[in-house]
Amino acid sequence: MAAAEIPFILLNDAGNAPPVYRQIYEAVRTSILKGELKQGIRLPSSRDLARRLGLARITIVNAYDQLLAEGYLEGRSGSGTYVAARLPEELLETRPPVVRKTEKRAVKPAVGLSSYGNRLRASAAELTQFRQPSRAAAFQNGVTAIEEFPFDTWAKLTQKVIYRSARRGLGYGEAAGLRELREAIAAHLASARGVRCSVEQVIVTNGAQQGLDLTGRILLEQNDKVLIEDPCYAGARVALASTGARLIRVPVDSEGFNPDAVGKQSAGARLVYVTPSHQYPLGVTMSLNRRLGLLDWAERSRAWIIEDDYNSEFRYAGRPLSSLQGLDSQNRVIYLGTFSKTIFPALRLACLVVPPDLVEVFTAARALTDYHSPHIEQAVLADFIAEGHFARHIRRMRALYEKRQAFLIEAARQKLNGLIDIEKADAGMHLVGRLPETIPDVSVAASAAEQNLLVAPLSSYAAPRTKLNGLILGYTGFNEKQIARGVDKLAKVLGGFS
Amino acid sequence: MAAAEIPFILLNDAGNAPPVYRQIYEAVRTSILKGELKQGIRLPSSRDLARRLGLARITIVNAYDQLLAEGYLEGRSGSGTYVAARLPEELLETRPPVVRKTEKRAVKPAVGLSSYGNRLRASAAELTQFRQPSRAAAFQNGVTAIEEFPFDTWAKLTQKVIYRSARRGLGYGEAAGLRELREAIAAHLASARGVRCSVEQVIVTNGAQQGLDLTGRILLEQNDKVLIEDPCYAGARVALASTGARLIRVPVDSEGFNPDAVGKQSAGARLVYVTPSHQYPLGVTMSLNRRLGLLDWAERSRAWIIEDDYNSEFRYAGRPLSSLQGLDSQNRVIYLGTFSKTIFPALRLACLVVPPDLVEVFTAARALTDYHSPHIEQAVLADFIAEGHFARHIRRMRALYEKRQAFLIEAARQKLNGLIDIEKADAGMHLVGRLPETIPDVSVAASAAEQNLLVAPLSSYAAPRTKLNGLILGYTGFNEKQIARGVDKLAKVLGGFS
Repeated sequence: MAAAEIPFILLNDAGNAPPVYRQIYEAVRTSILKGELKQGIRLPSSRDLARRLGLARITIVNAYDQLLAEGYLEGRSGSGTYVAARLPEELLETRPPVVRKTEKRAVKPAVGLSSYGNRLRASAAELTQFRQPSRAAAFQNGVTAIEEFPFDTWAKLTQKVIYRSARRGLGYGEAAGLRELREAIAAHLASARGVRCSVEQVIVTNGAQQGLDLTGRILLEQNDKVLIEDPCYAGARVALASTGARLIRVPVDSEGFNPDAVGKQSAGARLVYVTPSHQYPLGVTMSLNRRLGLLDWAERSRAWIIEDDYNSEFRYAGRPLSSLQGLDSQNRVIYLGTFSKTIFPALRLACLVVPPDLVEVFTAARALTDYHSPHIEQAVLADFIAEGHFARHIRRMRALYEKRQAFLIEAARQKLNGLIDIEKADAGMHLVGRLPETIPDVSVAASAAEQNLLVAPLSSYAAPRTKLNGLILGYTGFNEKQIARGVDKLAKVLGGFS
Repeated sequence: MAAAEIPFILLNDAGNAPPVYRQIYEAVRTSILKGELKQGIRLPSSRDLARRLGLARITIVNAYDQLLAEGYLEGRSGSGTYVAARLPEELLETRPPVVRKTEKRAVKPAVGLSSYGNRLRASAAELTQFRQPSRAAAFQNGVTAIEEFPFDTWAKLTQKVIYRSARRGLGYGEAAGLRELREAIAAHLASARGVRCSVEQVIVTNGAQQGLDLTGRILLEQNDKVLIEDPCYAGARVALASTGARLIRVPVDSEGFNPDAVGKQSAGARLVYVTPSHQYPLGVTMSLNRRLGLLDWAERSRAWIIEDDYNSEFRYAGRPLSSLQGLDSQNRVIYLGTFSKTIFPALRLACLVVPPDLVEVFTAARALTDYHSPHIEQAVLADFIAEGHFARHIRRMRALYEKRQAFLIEAARQKLNGLIDIEKADAGMHLVGRLPETIPDVSVAASAAEQNLLVAPLSSYAAPRTKLNGLILGYTGFNEKQIARGVDKLAKVLGGFS
């Protein structure tokens, strides 16, 4: 049987285009869903298609692997690859048939979406992946050692707050957040992160994601230029992209982000997104020189800077640099902190510190979008910080996470030697393991997922030209037994590739 | 001393323009803040200005009263009205001076906002008013009888949920909301409101405000036409206006909303916002004929409908009509329910029920904007509903609120007879008191506020041509003693006007 003709694929090599393997993945997936590539048909081999498109074979393999992992294709690259007989949209179908009393068939509504709605619809596949609920399997990143959380204290504080709040009415509260919580946050950020602000500049948000979304929405117009790190945290990238802004990836080096790395492309940028304390996902700390240079550049360019300080609390070595916000004398920095890493993600509390001139518009936007965060959770967190439990918990977790990291490194040294190159990290909640070029991270991640082992491919955070190839290994949410078991599984998976 | 010249005021009489008194208020306020009208200067009398502008004197009085109430003007209309010597912006200044270590003075950032940001900035005065935290004073509307809430049950369920959740990890959850809660909501809405949907169509939001904001953002483009009720709930109006859409006010009559009431102006509308169960604030129930007509119109026009079913749980008389959503065979209706009125506003939980074709884009938007609502509160609410506490609480509150309404009506009959015309309401949490034309509601509200009596002026919800003049009296959050005291105060305030 002859292989199917893959329909014409227009590849986009602009700086802000998705990785090429991703573009191929999307094109093939779309053709399958449109019915252009029929179920059961055989695809050209990765070698043939690579030749035809003038690409490295590995790029095609990555795209096919992703499609295989998601169930759009069946079979193995060696013995032929086929469009799956049963497509995942059918398998994943969650919408039951709409039963109507009237006899009229439900008509598909006209598209009728805004440009924002249409952008979301167009990137639905990526967004589905982005919004996966977290799973308890190693090495899921960003998961806290929840079994060590002082739930007794939390429960006791919650009881107190419920009865105290009952007397206060529990009506609508302040849009910017509960005053006590904002005071506790301002004091904590001043001492721990050198953030300099008044309580009025602190705005409580539903997680860092809301801070990113509000910032993008308030500051960015469609087609505005935004500089992001390459590689970059996905939650920030998708939120900023949803505004219709053009994202330009700026390669990060050993000193961190530098707008000059993309030459003239940085000109006219309205906003920069950076993670100076601990670059996500590479872990680089932005040097002081670079920080001062960035602030200077931002002032000259009249650009805003988002400083995402997502897990600066966990530093195991070296002197922590204080925040970029603390160095900013020009009110250019929008600081973003979160309690997802220090308390737990399901709390959905984080904070923005915005320049004085933006306080009013951010507060108005917060009120318009959802009024404010829930009162009880805010009040419990305020008490948790004020009574010293927060600082104590961070101290304990810092020690625990340091041990867990060391354990993972030692286990990897024993079991993964030669297969993956893992470097110690001075801070944060994950390690980066670099893979040899011959073993594509996307394929490893797909194979690992079949074993319920969660390793995010480093390349998925970066532009293809950046040539990153490795795995993100979160270690904070797993005890030594779980880490050891995860390393064993990973050894088996990686063994299959060499 | 001669009166100041009021700078040229351009009045806008388009259907979607703010009320004329509001335009005058804005113009005068802006002139004061710009320094065109200097502090201490005398303004022309309301009579003179009315003559010059060709308006009814009452319009100018209303504008002046608002400016007096907010502290921009001083003195009384009779003895001369002056620009205040000390302006409220100074009085209300909440931003402390920014202290910087570096010697450089903080430079005011370039405006650098998106069109959304600029729209918010332009309507900052209105938004500040809109996002006032609720106060415990009579007759604040939308406040629950919080002293009757079963806090013991809530606290007990919260304890259980905290310990149960601790074992489940408390990582990131499902963007559309906790499955158990969505199931509980779907079942409740099916039986109580005739809403027909699958669990997948239910999306948990942070209050109805987030539902409104998401809907506007996903469906509306700048300059799209939106039909809203006249008068209209402010939270919906400001959220929809923030998208840059053109809002067209459609007068509500005794059968409720009817798109034909504005003739050809309704053509091409993309979205309609209605409150069919209990029009806010007038309290009209939309007739079945009108409901069918609206659905038919929406299908022909390919327009979406937001059905805000904000307090349908509290119906005291008459057979409740089931939801518009339940009649919709064309998947045109986006249903909005809230727990702010049945539990308490500070909970920040509500729900959307969206047509199947919109599930994916709404869920993606929810994930991008703030991932999901807090886990613990969602789980507690799910248990509260599933264990029957919710239904029991609603039954108790319905009986209580009915009594409170009757008490307010009787007290008003005794003390406010002839001053205000209050009609019994079949449903909801507030009464509307109509005022004679000679007593402008804005002035009454301002005088009442000085006595810590909160009555919202009916005219502030409507276009000026609608000529509504009355007060919104919320009664659910106050016991009989508080209601009686509130009525006494209102009698005094109204007495001062006759």
